[in-house]
Amino acid sequence: MRRRLLALSLSLAANSALANEGMWMPSQLPDIARQLRQAGFQGKPGELAGLARPPMNAVVKVGGGTGAFVSGDGLVLTNHHVAFGVVQYNSKPGRDLIQDGYIAADRMAELPANPDYRVLVTTGFDKVTDRILADARGKQGKAYYDAVDAATKAVVAECELDVGYRCSVANMYYGTDFYLVKQLELRDIRLVYAPPNDIGNYGGEVDNFMWPRHTGDFTLLRAYVGRDGKPADHSPDNIPYVPPAHLQVSTRNVKEGDYAMLAGYPGVTFRHRMASEFANQVGWQLPSRVALFDGMIRTIETASADDEDARVRYASQVRSFKNSLKRAQGELDGLRRSDAVAVRREDENAMYGWLERQSDAAAIRADIAAAQAVLDRGVAMRERDQLLGAINGQAQLLRSAITLQRLAHERAKPDAQRESGFQQRDEVLITGQLKQVQRRYSPVVEKALLAHLVAQYQVLPADQHVPEYDALFGTTREQLTARLDALYAGTGLGGEANRLQAMQADAATLGASSDPLLQAAKTLLPAILRLDGESKASAGELLRLRPAYMRALIGFRESQGRAVYPDANSTLRVSYGRIQSMDPRDGIHYTPLTTVQGIVEKHTGVEPFIAPAPLLDAIAKGDFGTTAEPSLKTQTVNFLTNLDTTGGNSGSPVLDAKGRLIGLNFDSNWEAVSASWMFDPRYKRAIHVDMRYMRWLMAKVYPAPHLLREMGLPAE
Amino acid sequence: MRRRLLALSLSLAANSALANEGMWMPSQLPDIARQLRQAGFQGKPGELAGLARPPMNAVVKVGGGTGAFVSGDGLVLTNHHVAFGVVQYNSKPGRDLIQDGYIAADRMAELPANPDYRVLVTTGFDKVTDRILADARGKQGKAYYDAVDAATKAVVAECELDVGYRCSVANMYYGTDFYLVKQLELRDIRLVYAPPNDIGNYGGEVDNFMWPRHTGDFTLLRAYVGRDGKPADHSPDNIPYVPPAHLQVSTRNVKEGDYAMLAGYPGVTFRHRMASEFANQVGWQLPSRVALFDGMIRTIETASADDEDARVRYASQVRSFKNSLKRAQGELDGLRRSDAVAVRREDENAMYGWLERQSDAAAIRADIAAAQAVLDRGVAMRERDQLLGAINGQAQLLRSAITLQRLAHERAKPDAQRESGFQQRDEVLITGQLKQVQRRYSPVVEKALLAHLVAQYQVLPADQHVPEYDALFGTTREQLTARLDALYAGTGLGGEANRLQAMQADAATLGASSDPLLQAAKTLLPAILRLDGESKASAGELLRLRPAYMRALIGFRESQGRAVYPDANSTLRVSYGRIQSMDPRDGIHYTPLTTVQGIVEKHTGVEPFIAPAPLLDAIAKGDFGTTAEPSLKTQTVNFLTNLDTTGGNSGSPVLDAKGRLIGLNFDSNWEAVSASWMFDPRYKRAIHVDMRYMRWLMAKVYPAPHLLREMGLPAE
Repeated sequence: MRRRLLALSLSLAANSALANEGMWMPSQLPDIARQLRQAGFQGKPGELAGLARPPMNAVVKVGGGTGAFVSGDGLVLTNHHVAFGVVQYNSKPGRDLIQDGYIAADRMAELPANPDYRVLVTTGFDKVTDRILADARGKQGKAYYDAVDAATKAVVAECELDVGYRCSVANMYYGTDFYLVKQLELRDIRLVYAPPNDIGNYGGEVDNFMWPRHTGDFTLLRAYVGRDGKPADHSPDNIPYVPPAHLQVSTRNVKEGDYAMLAGYPGVTFRHRMASEFANQVGWQLPSRVALFDGMIRTIETASADDEDARVRYASQVRSFKNSLKRAQGELDGLRRSDAVAVRREDENAMYGWLERQSDAAAIRADIAAAQAVLDRGVAMRERDQLLGAINGQAQLLRSAITLQRLAHERAKPDAQRESGFQQRDEVLITGQLKQVQRRYSPVVEKALLAHLVAQYQVLPADQHVPEYDALFGTTREQLTARLDALYAGTGLGGEANRLQAMQADAATLGASSDPLLQAAKTLLPAILRLDGESKASAGELLRLRPAYMRALIGFRESQGRAVYPDANSTLRVSYGRIQSMDPRDGIHYTPLTTVQGIVEKHTGVEPFIAPAPLLDAIAKGDFGTTAEPSLKTQTVNFLTNLDTTGGNSGSPVLDAKGRLIGLNFDSNWEAVSASWMFDPRYKRAIHVDMRYMRWLMAKVYPAPHLLREMGLPAE
Repeated sequence: MRRRLLALSLSLAANSALANEGMWMPSQLPDIARQLRQAGFQGKPGELAGLARPPMNAVVKVGGGTGAFVSGDGLVLTNHHVAFGVVQYNSKPGRDLIQDGYIAADRMAELPANPDYRVLVTTGFDKVTDRILADARGKQGKAYYDAVDAATKAVVAECELDVGYRCSVANMYYGTDFYLVKQLELRDIRLVYAPPNDIGNYGGEVDNFMWPRHTGDFTLLRAYVGRDGKPADHSPDNIPYVPPAHLQVSTRNVKEGDYAMLAGYPGVTFRHRMASEFANQVGWQLPSRVALFDGMIRTIETASADDEDARVRYASQVRSFKNSLKRAQGELDGLRRSDAVAVRREDENAMYGWLERQSDAAAIRADIAAAQAVLDRGVAMRERDQLLGAINGQAQLLRSAITLQRLAHERAKPDAQRESGFQQRDEVLITGQLKQVQRRYSPVVEKALLAHLVAQYQVLPADQHVPEYDALFGTTREQLTARLDALYAGTGLGGEANRLQAMQADAATLGASSDPLLQAAKTLLPAILRLDGESKASAGELLRLRPAYMRALIGFRESQGRAVYPDANSTLRVSYGRIQSMDPRDGIHYTPLTTVQGIVEKHTGVEPFIAPAPLLDAIAKGDFGTTAEPSLKTQTVNFLTNLDTTGGNSGSPVLDAKGRLIGLNFDSNWEAVSASWMFDPRYKRAIHVDMRYMRWLMAKVYPAPHLLREMGLPAE
């Protein structure tokens, strides 16, 4: 069986590259112009390449996701869940915009977002590889890492001299190329139109990751600037931002097989990781992550079984563990279903075969071997690293103590040289965390959790042991129990005032504290700093060595007539494909378009399935007009494409063959949770709001004819 | 919306009668010959009418379900779950036939079933309406009931003078007609071939009621008779029974749209109940049943929260409550989805419209009105009846006390006149129940459960109160608590020996017992007997009056050119239709054939999804030969039809247009759980084992070439 499945996977994986796998940099699109046209694109691929020209300059970063300008007056379309904070910020007792939704009757009624909410318009994307690597060349390990870090900071600082812009350096192909990304930072964002939460988040957590879906996950915002046209903090005097371009919402119908493309800011993927990393991910990381979370959940649940108060305190952490466990299990199931390790290994072997025939094979092979050696060292310490991560990070009070000692340590340096996360600007966040502990901590449960984790650490082979941890916790179960009892019996860090006071102390004062948990953190800190340095040294080596692997991969793909997109890194990318159904399991076929009938079917009157009465009435009335899908004789809601997306693509505009806006990306299907590692065309789908549903809601259910007109759409 | 859904339902309901709704008596099939042929049947409908001729005389009652002879040597094909008790009976430490399955290498190796296991061959089906009703005519209420009961017993006793036969009287069209069913009772049944449980019950409770399905739910038995050819107890000297006919397993392919028909013994349906009964079922019975079970579950869970031992004792009862709740909720959801009350009401109104134009309208209307009055009296007491049913039946120890007092009361009569369930032959069962209490009882939980139930009874309106219950439990919450405390503090019935000893006592001794629970049961007994009598009086009245309603319905249907099948009553019925896919919800399409790929997809290695290694290996090998479905290029497993089934149809043979055996019915889909009340063609499906899967398993995976040859099938 294994052989047959493998052959199947390989043939599908090979096909996928010819089909629609890929998160392309816009600049690459002219290189794949033939494929784009074959897929059905009717525009000029060259026009997609320019970040500063339409349509790409209409695509913006919004909150933690993506959005697009949809009018010449700065109207931004994004997901309800991407703009949720803005809706929440404007809700208060007596005005529940989450529940009721919001329609600004005119510009005066548009509500300011929380002050830290941003819309970023990308205006520059320039290769700066030479500047970033100039000092690094010839160096190794941590020195290489530090040189890249310093050059990056310098380039960013120089770029940000241009007031109103935010700059960053994007690493493409794992250290092969570096790009300076320059973005106009719009700071006065306002809420214009949000549907009720029971539409914008219909199905809630239950339907999250699910298809068929029936969610109106969209919201309209507007970006404002100062009267000089430049980014400004919120002011009633500000005027709407005039974007360089905007997208036109389509008034056409869409159907299965239609061409579709999407632009956005996908966060992170691992598609071009080495085969050994796939094997480690599937063979160890994911299963052991499942076991780790499962063990922590059981430990907390057992320790709090008879303590209602403790159960409440740990409810949020347990829920987060359960989500993490579910995600890890889903990713594992998906990668196994796709036989990802074997597929990647086979592909890599073919690449090595090709490499043998190249002139620079020896040098590349040497670098790859050196990179593999770095990865192997990581594998040799993976159990330790996973457990120490949980020990340092998941016990609320111990984590507070470590944070306090680390902060005191970092404060001794100039702010710019402090470790990221411990700089001056991070102190508000740290204060918040230290306060939060009060509601999330019980000494009995924390001791049980640490006992569970450290006991696993204690039985690791000797070469994975760290002297400071052994010294603190002892090396036997008995010592561990006694030490934990002593730590938690004696500490005063359980008191919020004590924690906040300790945050003000310098390293010497904290070092001299007799509090046993602060002493414990002092014991661990040298180990934490040392392991941190080792980790940066590894990162530096991989930054230096991985480009050889990428060079080989790109050359090999070129020999196959295929281009290589860089793994996702939160920069603007384009994916193309089509509206496509899916066969998730034997006997089940998912149609690619859902209809309002599904809203009625799911409606139970119980969260998360409470369709608002105006919506149910409008569906019953059946007055869908021009927004109905003729072939189905009813109103569509969501549709499914085979586009290549990942986290960060929320709110990405979905365009048709002529660049018209037909959908708004908002989720993936559960079967695709493993797509961050491997794109399997059988199972990878993206879920979008059909723009016809948005138009119908805005025309007939919660009407906003003025906004439809602003977008150049029929107002009823 | 309501109006549109209603119109939809009505049009679908009207279509259904033209399509495939109906559990027809074989004798009715010539009447619907045209529809049968239109649906694709290629045989002569008249040949299906004879119970004593092929193919109907090959269809038999097996255990609690249906089966069919598939060879001339008495081989019987039925479901694995119908024959499960036989497999279990033959399992013992070191020989786990449930897990391993079983293949009898030859006749000597065929294993005897448990001695009470039966195969019943129907040999007679004769109308005895006149005899059954002769004495009843002119009577009313309980007298009518008793007359029918007495005539039934007499007819059955006379029929059973023919040794080796079991006889029963079937009530058709709710008292309109009575048939004497005579069945040859085969008592020596042996296990011939069973797949491993992980095939026969693949998916277990998780997949129960689910589609897509991947279960090999079949088993082969063989019926034996004495050397004289007559039914006999098991003996090594017995010989295979030669059935009057057997079905031929098909070697053809099947596909969506193909004609299919099924014969079997469906248990009970309510399709022809009055519209007011539909309204009561949807408006009150099902919702309040959900609430009742939910309340009992919560009460038991709360009362046993801190008592691990009590949780274990009540685990089985709670599980059963949860199943009942799920079923009731599923039925309720389905009837609402189908808008069953409105559809039935609309249809009934049309019938009344037609009735007005008939000459005997007045007499029929009077009887229907009288029946409605009986139903109305039941509705008036429904809260009381539901609560008293739970109070008497769901508290283990109180139920034991009531059983003991009732048994003593009944024992004073001649055995034949004792209430059914309290006759001599029932005493073994009662003893078992009294013993079981030991493992299922905790006084704290039982008191909490009774307090919860009786408190609801206490607040019922005065006209629903029963003096004996008021006397026992008091009329206030305080009295109730005190009485329950006293009952359970003082009773000795918690001891198994005491219960078994009380079972031997006569009414006088028990009546004099000072045990407070026995005293309580003595207090309640007169009420129980009185309510029992009232219930029989109502049943008698309905038996007398419902035929008027049925006459109107049959006449009305005749005017529409349609025949009426009687509601199911465990007699032989035939349904016809076709292999059909299903769209369960917006966006989802179920294909009508599943394949072995789904077995691999579902396989987790954890119950209930542990596909046996030989099966996985055979699937991987892909050697499907002639049993593969050409259009899918793989092996099918189960298929879906729109046939009309209900509980009791398990093991029903599914035949093609020429009467060849293509499938074995084993389940329905979850959406069809409400079909006992209303057949909705959008959602009603039946789930079958594809005979090609059975043939493949028997040829290639767990080979039994000798059995394939016996069935006239290719042996590899």
